[in-house]
Amino acid sequence: MPSIATIRLNPNDNVVVAVTALEPGTEIVAEGITTRDAIPFGHKVSTKPIPRGTPVRKYGQVIGVASEDIAPGQHVHVQNLAFSDLREEADAAPVFEAHERPRTFLGYKRANGKVGTRNYIGVLTSVNCSATVARHIAEAAEKSGLLKDYPNIDGIVPITHPSGCGMAVKGEGYDLLTRTLWGTGANPNFAAVLLVGLGCEMIQLARFKQEYGITDSEHFQSFTIQDTGGTKRAIAEGLARLKTMLPAANAITRTPQPASELVIGLQCGGSDGWSGITANPALGNASDRLVSLGGTVLLSETPEIYGAEHLLYARAQSPALVEKLRARITWWEEYTAIHKMEMNNNPSPGNKAGGLTTILEKSLGAVAKAGTSPLVDVIEYAEPVKKHGLVFMDSPGFDPCSATGQVASGATMIAFTTGRGSAYGCKPSPSIKLATNSEVYRKMPDDMDLDCGTIATGGATVEEKGAEILDYLLAVASGQKSKSEELGYGDMEFVPWHIGAVM
Amino acid sequence: MPSIATIRLNPNDNVVVAVTALEPGTEIVAEGITTRDAIPFGHKVSTKPIPRGTPVRKYGQVIGVASEDIAPGQHVHVQNLAFSDLREEADAAPVFEAHERPRTFLGYKRANGKVGTRNYIGVLTSVNCSATVARHIAEAAEKSGLLKDYPNIDGIVPITHPSGCGMAVKGEGYDLLTRTLWGTGANPNFAAVLLVGLGCEMIQLARFKQEYGITDSEHFQSFTIQDTGGTKRAIAEGLARLKTMLPAANAITRTPQPASELVIGLQCGGSDGWSGITANPALGNASDRLVSLGGTVLLSETPEIYGAEHLLYARAQSPALVEKLRARITWWEEYTAIHKMEMNNNPSPGNKAGGLTTILEKSLGAVAKAGTSPLVDVIEYAEPVKKHGLVFMDSPGFDPCSATGQVASGATMIAFTTGRGSAYGCKPSPSIKLATNSEVYRKMPDDMDLDCGTIATGGATVEEKGAEILDYLLAVASGQKSKSEELGYGDMEFVPWHIGAVM
Ligand SMILES: [Ca+2]
Ligand SMILES: [Ca+2]
Ligand SMILES: [Ca+2]
Ligand SMILES: [Ca+2]
Ligand SMILES: [Ca+2]
Repeated sequence: MPSIATIRLNPNDNVVVAVTALEPGTEIVAEGITTRDAIPFGHKVSTKPIPRGTPVRKYGQVIGVASEDIAPGQHVHVQNLAFSDLREEADAAPVFEAHERPRTFLGYKRANGKVGTRNYIGVLTSVNCSATVARHIAEAAEKSGLLKDYPNIDGIVPITHPSGCGMAVKGEGYDLLTRTLWGTGANPNFAAVLLVGLGCEMIQLARFKQEYGITDSEHFQSFTIQDTGGTKRAIAEGLARLKTMLPAANAITRTPQPASELVIGLQCGGSDGWSGITANPALGNASDRLVSLGGTVLLSETPEIYGAEHLLYARAQSPALVEKLRARITWWEEYTAIHKMEMNNNPSPGNKAGGLTTILEKSLGAVAKAGTSPLVDVIEYAEPVKKHGLVFMDSPGFDPCSATGQVASGATMIAFTTGRGSAYGCKPSPSIKLATNSEVYRKMPDDMDLDCGTIATGGATVEEKGAEILDYLLAVASGQKSKSEELGYGDMEFVPWHIGAVM
Repeated sequence: MPSIATIRLNPNDNVVVAVTALEPGTEIVAEGITTRDAIPFGHKVSTKPIPRGTPVRKYGQVIGVASEDIAPGQHVHVQNLAFSDLREEADAAPVFEAHERPRTFLGYKRANGKVGTRNYIGVLTSVNCSATVARHIAEAAEKSGLLKDYPNIDGIVPITHPSGCGMAVKGEGYDLLTRTLWGTGANPNFAAVLLVGLGCEMIQLARFKQEYGITDSEHFQSFTIQDTGGTKRAIAEGLARLKTMLPAANAITRTPQPASELVIGLQCGGSDGWSGITANPALGNASDRLVSLGGTVLLSETPEIYGAEHLLYARAQSPALVEKLRARITWWEEYTAIHKMEMNNNPSPGNKAGGLTTILEKSLGAVAKAGTSPLVDVIEYAEPVKKHGLVFMDSPGFDPCSATGQVASGATMIAFTTGRGSAYGCKPSPSIKLATNSEVYRKMPDDMDLDCGTIATGGATVEEKGAEILDYLLAVASGQKSKSEELGYGDMEFVPWHIGAVM
């Protein structure tokens, strides 16, 4: 039972957020108002008269304009709040202070110096036409007991997708898909990768290997179904190749590694009115802690930060990064315009039911999970991450697609906030689920890793929850299974961003 | 060992096709020429002087123009043959004659009068976020031995895909995906369908059911993971729902049905120089036989018939159909232009290695699999097929994507010609593989159903092979397993056509 009725996020706001469903006529003493409408859990209620055409403020930022006169105590949502391009200058870039003692985790240090949190073998596919063979190789390897002699190997992961042919053999779509495929194969959570093609697809194995500088070794092998003589022989060939790769993959063990070697992909999905109030600020706090230790966090989901990008510009370490991010925003405006979609139209039916009215409001809450650290780099989808600190990786907001890009960029873990209750899980990079409200945490106990809803009821501060998230990230990085790993997620969630026509 | 060196497809052609690899200096008596270059197996050799800028003819049709002077005996391929828009008027529409005695197969007659060739239960997903739950429901059902008491059920098929959220909630992309999802669920090869959603996705279950007029019954059930309380409970709920659906699904048995109830999706993939000479004409003959029995064949893969559409216009039953097909061609020209792709650039590296130089040449060969029947309807991707006879269903050429649309339109079988060696297989609709050359048939014996390469060596006529294909289609329709079914294909090949931005 919460001891408060509403949360005020900023002294300058003219709305507050209901902590429980409020009946009409409920007095909110702290705000000196009485509700005029029913206010659903997580939704906004006005605290001042807001004349039609004037700004509605949350987080101290403009989230839209009143589409009709709003009186104090009224429910503020789609019926009286409209998207607006009004943006005030962001405050000066926040001061970031390191405050963490040195921390370590038990990781797998690879030959190239990168550090993994898991030790999988991947079966990568160039095309949908080799997906069944890849899956059958992985299943046959698991069922045959082949892995029993190799206890340090976490499993065989088929990486399958619906593309790889019926596409242009050059250009943005080709580059994006091949970069995603090889980025995933090169993730430090894979000890070794077997690449299986059909043979006649647009993504030709020889060219792919040449373009990405991939050479055969005990860590990488490849072949095609057509060269091998069909499905049965390809599965047998795959098992034979795997056998030659298992000893080296098994030889590596976990050793203490500095937290600076962690790369965490930040995600939110199935957001609600709480996401930006509880879990995202708590994850932001954990992000700041990890960055202070020299670690890396990837903020992504460009359509979900749209409208709040000025906050990131203010934190960029150089004007060149501002221009790079601005260029991506422009790219997105053109991409969506070509497809007759709107960047300002992002909240899903679930988001709206949860109390988010406009894209700006959602975006301010989404950016909160990146904390307050300076922005040290801006990279494209699936481009290898090179710097330590807060990095922006461009991607769609669609969770599995965005996380696939982060893993291809090098994320060895995913931290995922959710209000409605996501069921996402990932291989090879474990994903932890942070509930934005205690109700979803209780409702989906087998899926949610941590409950950030206690922030809304006074059970924990953002700082305490941030510390707990960092501890948990380090524990999972060291081998403790996340909830989604326990449930067996990760074989169906490889979703490369698809750009371009299907031919 | 072939008794011939080359095949002439039409008296007016100025190229012939090599039946085996030919050394330079090989005399081809039937054509009165001697080869000047090495001619790879399946490639073209000129029989007359072809001055630069003049047409190259195959199938009696213009397939492009010489980009340099070509002498008799030269290899004709990418180095001297260029795409051209030159098209001559198609000959008068061919006369179609019925010639088959009445035929039947053993099928599953559904309550709506449609007839299936298999009796599966589908676990449909609205979004990628429910893919793992759907797969785990299907696996748990299979592993638990639940199906042992229901011998008439062929299995549980998870229908998973990478979309369903991060997309516009209206428009072409939304319509295309939902139509594909429900079309697949409504395929007569499914006795019953369980639909699993996450809860907060763009494709909302209530709206989806309302839009497609779907009501709950022992043949259809649905729920979301979020409503059910997470992954574990959703899997348990799925199993419980399946249990209530199994008795009705098992109650139906195979009964003799007229061949007119069959709907066959025609496909070719991994084409080579033989596709248009052996397997496609043979499948065209089988198509004509089935159509003469009142059955339905779906020609698709619009980019692959591009350049040969004039042949279909000439066969359309009404001017309205010509306009409908023309409109789709125009749509494709715009779609590819927006994505900076070209309709005339389709042959894949594998196609080219196999001897196909231009899209026109490939298209003429692709159309051959539709035989000579009149065109009775033109439908869009995944739109329900309503007429009997030869129907054109618009789709990309990418095999799994095109076949997914055909199954969603109602195809209860797929007939797939391949020269390079496709590994495609499908559920719920069995797919048969027709090898265009005996080499690939020998090389991939577990994948290829029938060898059409014998047409090139004098071992069978097109008519004999067409009769054999029809017999085989009826046998597989009656329950005999196709090669790809024996290999366990069909869980990874549901590839809905993706149009629009990923947000
Ligand atoms: Ca987000
Ligand atoms: Ca998201
Ligand atoms: Ca799939
Ligand atoms: Ca084709
Ligand atoms: Ca094709």
